[in-house]
Amino acid sequence: MTAPARGRGRPRDPETDAAILRAALEVFVERGIEGLSIEQVAKRAGVGKLTVYRRWATKEELVSQAIQTIVGEELTFSLDDLDALSPYEITERALPAAAELAASPAYRALIARILGSAVSHPSLMAVTWERYILPRRRLAAYLIERARQEGLLAPDADADVLIDMMVGAVMYRALQPGPPDTAEMLRYLRAVYRQAGLLPPEPS
Amino acid sequence: MTAPARGRGRPRDPETDAAILRAALEVFVERGIEGLSIEQVAKRAGVGKLTVYRRWATKEELVSQAIQTIVGEELTFSLDDLDALSPYEITERALPAAAELAASPAYRALIARILGSAVSHPSLMAVTWERYILPRRRLAAYLIERARQEGLLAPDADADVLIDMMVGAVMYRALQPGPPDTAEMLRYLRAVYRQAGLLPPEPS
Repeated sequence: MTAPARGRGRPRDPETDAAILRAALEVFVERGIEGLSIEQVAKRAGVGKLTVYRRWATKEELVSQAIQTIVGEELTFSLDDLDALSPYEITERALPAAAELAASPAYRALIARILGSAVSHPSLMAVTWERYILPRRRLAAYLIERARQEGLLAPDADADVLIDMMVGAVMYRALQPGPPDTAEMLRYLRAVYRQAGLLPPEPS
Repeated sequence: MTAPARGRGRPRDPETDAAILRAALEVFVERGIEGLSIEQVAKRAGVGKLTVYRRWATKEELVSQAIQTIVGEELTFSLDDLDALSPYEITERALPAAAELAASPAYRALIARILGSAVSHPSLMAVTWERYILPRRRLAAYLIERARQEGLLAPDADADVLIDMMVGAVMYRALQPGPPDTAEMLRYLRAVYRQAGLLPPEPS
């Protein structure tokens, strides 16, 4: 059932890691963080539980990284990219992948499980926040600061509040009855970014 | 264990109803909608399960109404009230109760459970949406339409999107690590409403 202890320190197998992350996502969506154990994930992935523990110290770390394999793909900007484009161009470039992600069943299921565990089991949100959400918020805050300097946003616009309004709206919309398909989510995201001031007003 | 069938149609006892709703809230916060049964709620409330079924046909109806006893209290506006006040006055009047609610542990726990079950058990969101959320959104949309007519909002502002951004931000903020106390939530709500255009800009 368990990997030999002498395996510790051995170079990791990317395919094994990928199988473990896939299994972790599946079990997380099925049972939530409270119902997930490293043992179940190891069994689902067909590896020994020490193989999992060698790589991830806690189930929260494991699930956080597994979530990132789904939701991290549209984070393709560096600060250099941000500087080379206008705020509107950055938004336009980010929208198609964001719409596809936000309209996917996998995103809805993950968001529900993450938010759903935030009070009863706060450590998953804490790890995910620190490791994955904060770095992306810093990029978004940088974009918002540039947009403010260019006069696109009000001088008193609060970056944290604005990010919460944009992200919060998309998560809430994804969990409402009748979730949108990709085309409808793209329309919705445009309306959110326009309302936030990060896309130009509609021509009237 | 069960109430006599001849009780059907008898005037209901408000104290019994209140005890059932309290018990439903407790069990919902502890176990979520998937882990809740009418039997457990009846036992917790000290009544027979037919007493519960006589009043609520499904556990989703019961839990939706129980949630409403917590989150419905700040909905104290009629359309006549809305017409008698300016949009800024309406927002100002609604803010203190909204901040107290959004900063309460009960709100955080409920929001997590409601959003958390939206994908795995969508019927709770569906019932709550239809019965409680939509009527409040209609009031908010009316306020937004008035604010647009008075030139406070952009002509292309989309009421549904704006409501999602405000409500989504508050729910997301409440579930982030380090949830705000009432004073901090009031400051946060002001920033959200200001960003939305439903409070005036800060004096600079």
